[in-house]
Order: sequence, then C-alpha cells, then structure tokens
Amino acid sequence: MGERLKFIGWGTENSGLDEAERNLLFGFLADRLGIEPRLVAPPRLADIGLSPSRVVPPAAMAHLFTTDPYERCLHTYGKSYPETVRAFARDFANAPDLVAIPASEADVTQVMEWASGANVAIIPFGCGSSVVGGVEPDIGDRYVGAVSLDLRRFDRMVEVDRSSRAARIQGGMRGPAIEAALKPHDLSIRHYPQSFEFSTLGGWIATRSGGHFATLYTHIDDFVQSTRTVTPQGTLETRRLPGSGAGPSPDRLIIGSEGALGVITEAWMRLQDRPRFRGGAVFGFPDLFAAARAVRAVVQSGLYPSNLRVIDNQEAGIYGVNDYQETILMLAFESADHPVEAWTKRAIELIQDNGGRRHPDDSAAQAWRTAFIRMPYARELTVPLGVINDTFETAVTWDKFEEFHTAVSAATAQAIEEATGRPGTVSTRFTHVYPDGPAPYYTFNAQGTPGRLIEQWRHIKTRASDALITAGGTITHHHAVGRDHMPWYRLQRPALFGKTFDAAKSVLDPARILNPGVLAD
Amino acid sequence: MGERLKFIGWGTENSGLDEAERNLLFGFLADRLGIEPRLVAPPRLADIGLSPSRVVPPAAMAHLFTTDPYERCLHTYGKSYPETVRAFARDFANAPDLVAIPASEADVTQVMEWASGANVAIIPFGCGSSVVGGVEPDIGDRYVGAVSLDLRRFDRMVEVDRSSRAARIQGGMRGPAIEAALKPHDLSIRHYPQSFEFSTLGGWIATRSGGHFATLYTHIDDFVQSTRTVTPQGTLETRRLPGSGAGPSPDRLIIGSEGALGVITEAWMRLQDRPRFRGGAVFGFPDLFAAARAVRAVVQSGLYPSNLRVIDNQEAGIYGVNDYQETILMLAFESADHPVEAWTKRAIELIQDNGGRRHPDDSAAQAWRTAFIRMPYARELTVPLGVINDTFETAVTWDKFEEFHTAVSAATAQAIEEATGRPGTVSTRFTHVYPDGPAPYYTFNAQGTPGRLIEQWRHIKTRASDALITAGGTITHHHAVGRDHMPWYRLQRPALFGKTFDAAKSVLDPARILNPGVLAD
Repeated sequence: MGERLKFIGWGTENSGLDEAERNLLFGFLADRLGIEPRLVAPPRLADIGLSPSRVVPPAAMAHLFTTDPYERCLHTYGKSYPETVRAFARDFANAPDLVAIPASEADVTQVMEWASGANVAIIPFGCGSSVVGGVEPDIGDRYVGAVSLDLRRFDRMVEVDRSSRAARIQGGMRGPAIEAALKPHDLSIRHYPQSFEFSTLGGWIATRSGGHFATLYTHIDDFVQSTRTVTPQGTLETRRLPGSGAGPSPDRLIIGSEGALGVITEAWMRLQDRPRFRGGAVFGFPDLFAAARAVRAVVQSGLYPSNLRVIDNQEAGIYGVNDYQETILMLAFESADHPVEAWTKRAIELIQDNGGRRHPDDSAAQAWRTAFIRMPYARELTVPLGVINDTFETAVTWDKFEEFHTAVSAATAQAIEEATGRPGTVSTRFTHVYPDGPAPYYTFNAQGTPGRLIEQWRHIKTRASDALITAGGTITHHHAVGRDHMPWYRLQRPALFGKTFDAAKSVLDPARILNPGVLAD
Repeated sequence: MGERLKFIGWGTENSGLDEAERNLLFGFLADRLGIEPRLVAPPRLADIGLSPSRVVPPAAMAHLFTTDPYERCLHTYGKSYPETVRAFARDFANAPDLVAIPASEADVTQVMEWASGANVAIIPFGCGSSVVGGVEPDIGDRYVGAVSLDLRRFDRMVEVDRSSRAARIQGGMRGPAIEAALKPHDLSIRHYPQSFEFSTLGGWIATRSGGHFATLYTHIDDFVQSTRTVTPQGTLETRRLPGSGAGPSPDRLIIGSEGALGVITEAWMRLQDRPRFRGGAVFGFPDLFAAARAVRAVVQSGLYPSNLRVIDNQEAGIYGVNDYQETILMLAFESADHPVEAWTKRAIELIQDNGGRRHPDDSAAQAWRTAFIRMPYARELTVPLGVINDTFETAVTWDKFEEFHTAVSAATAQAIEEATGRPGTVSTRFTHVYPDGPAPYYTFNAQGTPGRLIEQWRHIKTRASDALITAGGTITHHHAVGRDHMPWYRLQRPALFGKTFDAAKSVLDPARILNPGVLAD
C-alpha cells in the first residue's frame, strides 16, 4: 500500500518535497516570516483517538462500508488550512462514522435509501482535495451520524467516441488515470487543476474546477457534454449533445452542485487532440497593473492563448523565480492542428506594445511551474511551525480590477497584522483571464501563534472575503463554496436563486442528507 | 405609424419581398410544388372579430393596459406556421384580454401582483418572433383571462463599460437599436439571429437564441454577464462577473426560461470590438456528408471561424444559389485585432484536403445570405396558397450524425407524402457547429390542402420530431421550446430536472401565472 493517500497532508505516503524544495521553502520562512525552520513529524495514525461509530449499516449492505481507522481519518478532512491545523492537533472529532465504498450505482442508491430513512448524512468524497471545507462531515446535531461516500471504485473509462472527441468517464477516475486511458486514442482532457493527481472527474464537475487553459475553456463546465447523477430520488441523466437551446441547461444545475444534490457517477466529456505545435514567451513588468493592461489587450484580441498567466513581484520572489523585482507574464499557445507562429507573434506584439520586457528564455516560467505543482506538499511542513498560509481566488470585471485589487490586498495585509501582530506576505497571480476581467488568485503567509492559528486564520479569511465581496468579486472562481465560503456565498447569490436551489434540493434529496451545510441552507 | 408591426406576417406594415424576390419564390412554388402562384391580400384588422376582454385591470393601473384591437391582434401570435395559418383564417380566439405596456420594473411588479391575485395569466412578449408557440395566450381554462406583457418600453442602453467590453441593456431593446447605441463606442453585440430586426435582448436570453458566430460563441448564453429578472416574488439579480465557480450558475436558470419564471428587464452583456479584418472562401461539395467531414476537420482544429455554414444541394437550389448540384460551405474569419490570413489559409487547406472545391468568388454566399435575411417575409405570401412550410433545428454528436440525418430527412419526406399525398421538399443547412457535433437546420415545403393545413403540418412536425428525438438530437438548438415542442421536450429533459424546474417555478411564480404551458407542466 505504498500508494495509499496520506491521511494528513498532500499526496501518497512517503511523498513530499525534496531537499532542494524544502530549502527554498525554509529560506522563505526564515527570510520573510522570521520563522526558524525545523522538521516536525506529522501525527501517526496510532496517535489519533476516534470516537466509536454511532451508526451501524444494515447487515445486507455491510460489505459496502468500513470503519477502518485509516479510512475514517482519511475521510475526515479535505486539504484546507484550518483542516490541516486540526489534523496536526489530532482533532478528528468530525470523523465519519462510516466510510462507504460503493462499486456500482445500485450500491450508491442503496446507501442513499438507507441513509435517507435513517437520517444519516452522506458526504460525497472524490479524492479529498477540497480546500474550502467541502468534504468534512461537519454536520451539526441534526443527524444520527455521517457516512463519507468514496467514489474510488468508479474508476473506468467506459467509452470513447473518437469522431466527436468525447469519452464517457466514471466520476471517481483521477486525472492521471484519465490521461492514461485517453493517450492510446491520441486524445487528452487537457484539464489540469493543481490537484490533478489527487482529484477526480466527479469532483471537478461538482466544484466547477478550473484547469489548464488560461483563456476560453477555463472551467470544467465547458468540457461537460452530459452528466449522470445518482440522487436519493433516482438517477438524473442528461442527453448527450454538442449544444442545445431546450430550456435552462440541466447540466448547469449539476455542475457546481458540490455533492448537495447527488453523486456524479459518470459524464461524457469533450476532449482535445494532443498538441503538436507550441509557442510562447515570458515577459517582465514593473508591477501587476502594468501586466494586467497587457493581459487585457491579449485576452480581448481573439487569439485565445492556452496560457496567459501572471505572477506578481511578491509571488515571483516567494517562488524563487526572481528577487521580487518583476511581475512575470507567461504566454503560450498550443495546437494539434497548425503551427502557432502567427498567433504567438501577434500576442507578443500586443504585450510589448503594453510595456512587456521579453525574457531571453522561459526559465522563469519553468521555475514557477515546478514550484506550483509541488506547492501543496509545503503545508504539512509549515503548519507545525505555526505558519498561517492560505490562498483565495476570485474574478472581477476590468473596470473594477485596480480598485478591487488594492482593497483586497490591503485588507488582507492589514488583517494579518491585526491577527498576528506582525506583517506577513500577500501575493497575487492571475490563473485565468476573460475578455471582461481577470481571475486573480491571492496567497498569504504569516507567522501565527500555535494554539491560536485557526482563530487568526479566520480573522484574515473573513476580512479578505468581506473586502472581496464588497469590491465586486466572486467568493470563488474555481475552489468552490464548501462550508468555508457559505457566509459570503449567501451575500453573493441572488436570494431568490438560493430559494430555487433549496427547492431543487428538496426535490432530489427530500431528507436533506447530502453534504449538509454546503450550498443549501 | 408607418413603422408599426404587421399583426399578420413579418416586419412592419408596408414591408415585404420585392418583385425579384417574389419571382424567385413563385418560381420555386410552381416548379417544385406545382402551385400556381398568385397574390392574396392578408386579412385587415377590420376583418377580425375579437371577443370582449374578460378582465378589467384595477383603475389605479389602468394606464398600463390597452384593449386596442390592433394591439390585441398583434399579441395573439408569434411567427410559427400554424399561427400564421390561423391568423389568415381570422381565428383570433386566443387574443389576450389585455396588453400591458409597462414602463418600469415597478409597473411590471404591479401587474404581476395583480395578476397573481386575480388568477390572470401573463405572457411576456418581446417582439413576437417566436416560431414555436412561445407567446400565444393559449392558456386553457384554468385562468380568468390573459395579459400579454410587452417590454417595448424597456428600450434603453443604460451603461457601457468600455474596458470590460460590456453594456447594461434593457430587455426590450431590439437588435438594430442595440447596435446603433454601441456603434459610438466602436463595440458590437455581434449576435444576429435571423429575427435580429424584430426581436429583443430579453427574448434572445429567454430563448437561448443562436447568433452570428457559427463556432465558439454560438448562443446568446456565452455573452450574458449578468441578468436582472422581475418575478412575482421579487427581483432576481445576478452578480456581474467575468467568470465564477460559486455553485450552479444563477444566470443559467434564467437563460432559456422562456418567460415561465419572470421577465428579464435588463442584462449586462459581453460585447465584441467591431471587426476590421476579414477573410474567407466558398466551397462546393457533392453532398452534405462530404461537406460535414470538412466542417468537422475545421471545427476540431481550434481555428474558430466566425462562419462555417453549410447549405445542402436542396437548400442551395431552393434559394437560387445554384441548380441543386452542389452543397455549399461558407467559411469566414473576422477580427478587430489582426489580419486573419494564417487562420483562413489553414482552414482552406483543411477543407480542400477534405474534398472541397473552392469557388472563384463568394457570389453563392452572397445570394444565400440575402435570401436568408428576407426569408421570413415569404410565409405571408405562401400560406394563402396552401403551402405548408416550416423549419426545425437540432444538434447531434458527430458519431450519430449521418444516421441521424438520414432518419430525420426520410421521416420528414415520408410524413409529407402521408399528410398531403404528394412529395414535398426537405432541405438542410448547418447553422452552427461544435467540435463534438453539428447543429443541422431543416426546412420543408409541401403543397397542402386549404382547410387541412394545420392538421397536415402537425403530422409532419410530429413525425420529424419523433425521428429527431429517437435518433439522439435535441428538440431545439436555438428556436426554444414554446408550446409546440413541449411533448418532445418532456422526452428529452431528465424527468428529475423537470421536477426541479417545476419547484423553481413554484418559488418564483407561486400562482403559476407566467406563460402557462411553456417548460413547466
């Protein structure tokens, strides 16, 4: 079981940052936060005291459940900051009573029927990469217990339609397995969230995940051709179509439903041919606003680059890309069909016309990309040192952007000082951009006080989220709502829409057992 | 009032086909359907006997309503085939009792509150271009009467945000007025449904209308940044954002809601810069399937042409583009930013590699385009001659396309013979195409029997729709559901989704007065 997922931290057991990566991280902690780094071993499974399970499944379906302590611990948390803090504090009070590992839709239906009757909450679980409290069985006292329902056995590519470039994929299939199954067909899903290795198709759809393409096909939404969702009231399967105008889109009710309406057991996904041609360049700007003007010119040009990501001076410095002196813009085009010179050339012109200084090579982009993919491994090293570290992401129209960014950055920086008594770091990148506005992504780091980390984190998160909603952004562009974003989601969503969602939930999940506390009230 | 809309037929009074256009049409009728053409004057307003209005509005809001016979006749029908037949038969039994012409959201709210209490149905009305029975007050006997609610006074461009390329536009604004208001900003909505001149922004959003771009931005859906909808339970306004992942999209509940949930009073719309560079070419193919293979290659290439429309041999012949010997493919690129040579060159290669014979000029495209825009004027000439003429449109994945097209065309042709005892014509074009499938658009013409036209039409429409649903298409790609498509919409939509839509309607329109018979059961 070397491939077993860690129950605390990112990825599989025995994986983590290598020495060089660790040195970069520790250097940052020492230089920027004044923290003396040391290695602290995470709690072992044997250290965790779990309460006995409060519910027993019917004997006839006992084979679908486990109470194995590892499984209960693994399914207690996602990967959010406060969850990691509580995991290190050996707080597994919200561990699910049972973990269900169904092998078929009939199994899922059986579990839902029993749970609906027995008043047991069900928390759908893909691979547990939620950073917003989307999978923790934090169910209050309305239920007799909680089941974490793990889709890991829904791991097959069922069908490939080469001519339509589409595949029917089960909801529990993880990113690398999807790519491996598509490779013989010379196809790719080309949707790589940071969590790619340890997240699932069903999870991507349920959370409206953001992927590989910085423009145009930014969300998984665009790749969904049809969905199949098991709910307590039966199966909701949409028709497989390239486009339709027949009433409001049924898929758009399911996409982003975060396990509150049902479990996405499979979906037909639109695919891409594997790229053969590539082009691009890296540019430096004095600051984020200068880079933003260039980005706006490119994203409104109709060129549709696959990459148009920005990392500001702070982020570049923290990731070791440069010494905080430049905001970096990464431009890339790709195609399976044609050389991309004409596209690249025009985008370079637009960026240079807007003040971009072209780098001689793409080493800055490479350095950032490697650090980006490895970043989730850092937290298990920094939490025991009392570091407060989190990210939040949003989107806002161009007319509001500069004021928005100034307000959100300042509120976050100030909240760090209020909470910890010391300055921290706040850095920004653009993960995706639209003709009508960017999707800024913020990272903050601070030296917190062991024992008070969650309270301090909550103060910062609250102030940042308040600022973001007040200034006109969305509480999430692709991390989803989960439990953590609910207060601001309530402010953002139209109240009447909230009521219609609630009514939809009453139709599909009348006992209201699915992921309580998420999306519906 | 020279600009007054015809109450029967297309466009404004005193407009219609010119002599050359009429000769082309009459030639087709004589040659292909064996009908001897003659000009028949449509009924005059004075010929129409209307029942007295069954409801009287409260005195305090009497100024919002009219019972003017012209207005009641204008608001009786959209532009579908059976509606036109009934209009020519002077059947205005379903005329609304009242026409409301509110000037503000407060007016709309007042009307909705009164109607909810008085059990009066409200039929939202943009400009009446529905071809699917979307605006006829065909309300059964559950209501004491019907109000057609005309949005014509919601005709303003409220705000333009140049940097985000977006504008806040009222729901009753028609296409040409929108373009005129955007022109000083060097912007365009670039959404031109065939009905452009006589349809409204709110109508486009409510019906998921299909527009100018044959690929990529096919539906109005893609251009909607946020919506504001007045419902009987209050106003549902979504947040203006370039992108979001915060739960299922609220806009996607409104887009396609066809007046059954509320009235779209305004929307922030994503706009385009006005194109300065253009390229393209016209190609001939022996048949539709050959052209489809070329289209598939282009639409899967990532080149995103603005036009990639196909008209098959039949349609080319009927429109006078050629003598039925070729299927035509029209390719076009446009850009406000850069010359499109590289794009055009590669698309031409792909089309020629797939057997396309390039035309020396674009005269075929020009001929078709002119005929296309003028086409809606034909029906008022052909209905009195007993011609059965209608169109239907769909979308289907590439893997099913050839079988689908064969089945649907054959079923339609056979149904024409069954209904009329004679062969008619069935022709096809592609209006929009997706990487995963085309959106075929079918036109049929037959010589019917005066007095039996609707019954004959219904037989053909039913057989064609049955075939289309059985073979895996959507009942509508951009014409909407209306009353005419409800039987097949019920088959297509997931039953559980139907229940959630119904629950949403109960939340927003608890008295169920809005557009009864459309979408909800």
